[in-house]
Amino acid sequence: MVNSVSGRILEGSRVLVDGFNTHPFVLGIANGTLPLEKFKYFMIQDYLYLMEYAKVFAIGAGKSYDDEITDAFTAYVSSIRSGEMDIHRGYMSRLGIDVAEAAKTRMAQDNLSYTSYMLRIAYEAGPAEICAAILPCAVSYEEIAVKMVKEDPSCVEHDFFGEWIKGYSSMEYHAENEELIRITDKAAAGYGEEQIKRLVEIGNRCTLYEKAFWDMSWEMRK
Amino acid sequence: MVNSVSGRILEGSRVLVDGFNTHPFVLGIANGTLPLEKFKYFMIQDYLYLMEYAKVFAIGAGKSYDDEITDAFTAYVSSIRSGEMDIHRGYMSRLGIDVAEAAKTRMAQDNLSYTSYMLRIAYEAGPAEICAAILPCAVSYEEIAVKMVKEDPSCVEHDFFGEWIKGYSSMEYHAENEELIRITDKAAAGYGEEQIKRLVEIGNRCTLYEKAFWDMSWEMRK
Amino acid sequence: MVNSVSGRILEGSRVLVDGFNTHPFVLGIANGTLPLEKFKYFMIQDYLYLMEYAKVFAIGAGKSYDDEITDAFTAYVSSIRSGEMDIHRGYMSRLGIDVAEAAKTRMAQDNLSYTSYMLRIAYEAGPAEICAAILPCAVSYEEIAVKMVKEDPSCVEHDFFGEWIKGYSSMEYHAENEELIRITDKAAAGYGEEQIKRLVEIGNRCTLYEKAFWDMSWEMRK
Amino acid sequence: MVNSVSGRILEGSRVLVDGFNTHPFVLGIANGTLPLEKFKYFMIQDYLYLMEYAKVFAIGAGKSYDDEITDAFTAYVSSIRSGEMDIHRGYMSRLGIDVAEAAKTRMAQDNLSYTSYMLRIAYEAGPAEICAAILPCAVSYEEIAVKMVKEDPSCVEHDFFGEWIKGYSSMEYHAENEELIRITDKAAAGYGEEQIKRLVEIGNRCTLYEKAFWDMSWEMRK
Repeated sequence: MVNSVSGRILEGSRVLVDGFNTHPFVLGIANGTLPLEKFKYFMIQDYLYLMEYAKVFAIGAGKSYDDEITDAFTAYVSSIRSGEMDIHRGYMSRLGIDVAEAAKTRMAQDNLSYTSYMLRIAYEAGPAEICAAILPCAVSYEEIAVKMVKEDPSCVEHDFFGEWIKGYSSMEYHAENEELIRITDKAAAGYGEEQIKRLVEIGNRCTLYEKAFWDMSWEMRK
Repeated sequence: MVNSVSGRILEGSRVLVDGFNTHPFVLGIANGTLPLEKFKYFMIQDYLYLMEYAKVFAIGAGKSYDDEITDAFTAYVSSIRSGEMDIHRGYMSRLGIDVAEAAKTRMAQDNLSYTSYMLRIAYEAGPAEICAAILPCAVSYEEIAVKMVKEDPSCVEHDFFGEWIKGYSSMEYHAENEELIRITDKAAAGYGEEQIKRLVEIGNRCTLYEKAFWDMSWEMRK
Repeated sequence: MVNSVSGRILEGSRVLVDGFNTHPFVLGIANGTLPLEKFKYFMIQDYLYLMEYAKVFAIGAGKSYDDEITDAFTAYVSSIRSGEMDIHRGYMSRLGIDVAEAAKTRMAQDNLSYTSYMLRIAYEAGPAEICAAILPCAVSYEEIAVKMVKEDPSCVEHDFFGEWIKGYSSMEYHAENEELIRITDKAAAGYGEEQIKRLVEIGNRCTLYEKAFWDMSWEMRK
Repeated sequence: MVNSVSGRILEGSRVLVDGFNTHPFVLGIANGTLPLEKFKYFMIQDYLYLMEYAKVFAIGAGKSYDDEITDAFTAYVSSIRSGEMDIHRGYMSRLGIDVAEAAKTRMAQDNLSYTSYMLRIAYEAGPAEICAAILPCAVSYEEIAVKMVKEDPSCVEHDFFGEWIKGYSSMEYHAENEELIRITDKAAAGYGEEQIKRLVEIGNRCTLYEKAFWDMSWEMRK
């Protein structure tokens, strides 16, 4: 039985998250057969996504009354907009993506829906709800990558997908998620049952958006 | 050539809005062949939509510095949540929809995307941007209904769709849209070119969401 | 011992609210000696205050997930901006205040501080926090007016202050406050201790702003 | 004649800002006679102020559509919450202030008013309005400190106030303000006359709050 708030949020999206493992886009990364143009499309939309993702944390940092949570959110914003983004940019240029061009690409509508929902939650509610929006998908990336490595350790050597798999199956990424879980439970401390149910619903909605993001990337939707 | 801001917003979504006239759902209303269960699905999701739509205007009323715009937004909120809603509820019960049940129906993901985008814009920006989000779709409903009546005046007598067509082809609804156009231009008075381009983009995004709403209703998406 | 959330909020500002009864401005209304120009100043600033007060409820209506609370907030906005405002306007013109002129008066800095704090809370948090901001001062007006009538029933006949005293000592106003208390407890249902303490703090801050509003009016601060 | 938006904002608060130079608190820093307990009070309230100041920039970073402005706002948040704060904390401990104790000090009501107004503006509007709120006071600190050094260069050697004077009269701080001026004009590019007037008003309101902050510190208000 799950008792923690984070555990309930994750459990509420468990079936959907498990399904990601057999998504054609994810399978394509795992066995290296994903057409490169689909991966490029995904990387560009992910780049645009991360810029909005940083905004969600910025609003959260502006609303938090807990120093630790504020510092965590602030660190997310900084790392997305500097360090992490540099890696992402380096990765993109290796894929032959012109970063300046990518930044000007029009965000796909599914991507806009996902990020707008998170931003709406950020404005409407607060840190706990932001964590609930982020958590299942952050964890899903780790689970996907760890499973890939477990089933075929050589997948990390793939010319284009290897680095992606390595990143999300790393101890560093695992530690980040552990931190996010801890912060989620802290932000939701003292929450009543109705409030917790709302967090589970938010997490579930975002997991549905995450699924749509995989679909969108697979179909390279305009 | 279009000079007004409202004109530019409408022009920016013209092609998409014109396409609504040949959407199977809209054609089904026009010629009376739309399966009733699809119309019921649409009415329930529209009911849920209107509740969020009212929130968008409420945020706008909370941000406006212009008395006339504040009063217009406040009137929208009140009419959606009382008068207009009563008509909607009466209509729904005639269609055999249990209103209390409808209120508990889970909002379809496309509907959530549409309303979350509008709410995000409301929180992020202000009255002009809210008007831009609302305008093309408000006008599209009028254009759709007026065209139906023009092509077959008897369509207003349809047992279930007639009232819907009558409402959106009425002089009252036309006057409401004229008012919205006027308020849009007032809210955007003094806006520079970059700000106006952003309004056009917002209107376009909402028209894409409107298209998805017709698709969703046609396919009765979960 | 106080158990309800509303009771704890009111108790947390009890000492401050009791002190209002002996404030020179309040005593001046009670015994009819308040210089009319001070009352006019107060009425004009109160007019400007109510416009921002309506914004607070509008934001609340845009954030609420409870139909009853949304309807209550929407009703506040409407009544402030139409019905109630008409009474206020009639009252003002009888005091020789030109309403159009009043609307253009620059809001005093203390008034701006009070209303900006409430708006910041509305944006930062949600319905329960908005209720906490409103509650102690809404109740303080009733207590002040009821005490005036109890100590000297003839005070309601004063040419200029009588109507003000009558309004806030009325059964209608009492019923409004009872409703506000009920809504506060509903909005805060399921709140943990930390969240309730925050509500008490918000109520206390607003009561300090209310005190400054009386001081400002007494000194007719620019 | 002033043409830039930043110039108009600064001009709109010029008289008030010039007056700061003869404020007893500022004069006390300049000539070294300020009672240390007043400076300690000021430092503690300034510490609490900076925490809210960071929130204003965080909201701005969450709303900006301009990469350069987003990066600048993000850098402010990070530097306030890490680097700069460390200096502030070192400074405070040298003054014998227990930092953990300071963090728990209740924010003075004037301080709450100032920071709540800025946060309300951040939520209500966007990056240009945030810059307008920040600009006059950021510049006033530089002007105050530069004037102190000009009139008595030895003031930078004062045991307790010297470091403060040095910091705000430094080339680094001057460069920061130049950057803020540039960003203000960028954020307001394309703004119409009504929008610019609103920026001037916001800057003026914040300068009035800044004056109240000096008064509050001089009187050590609770």
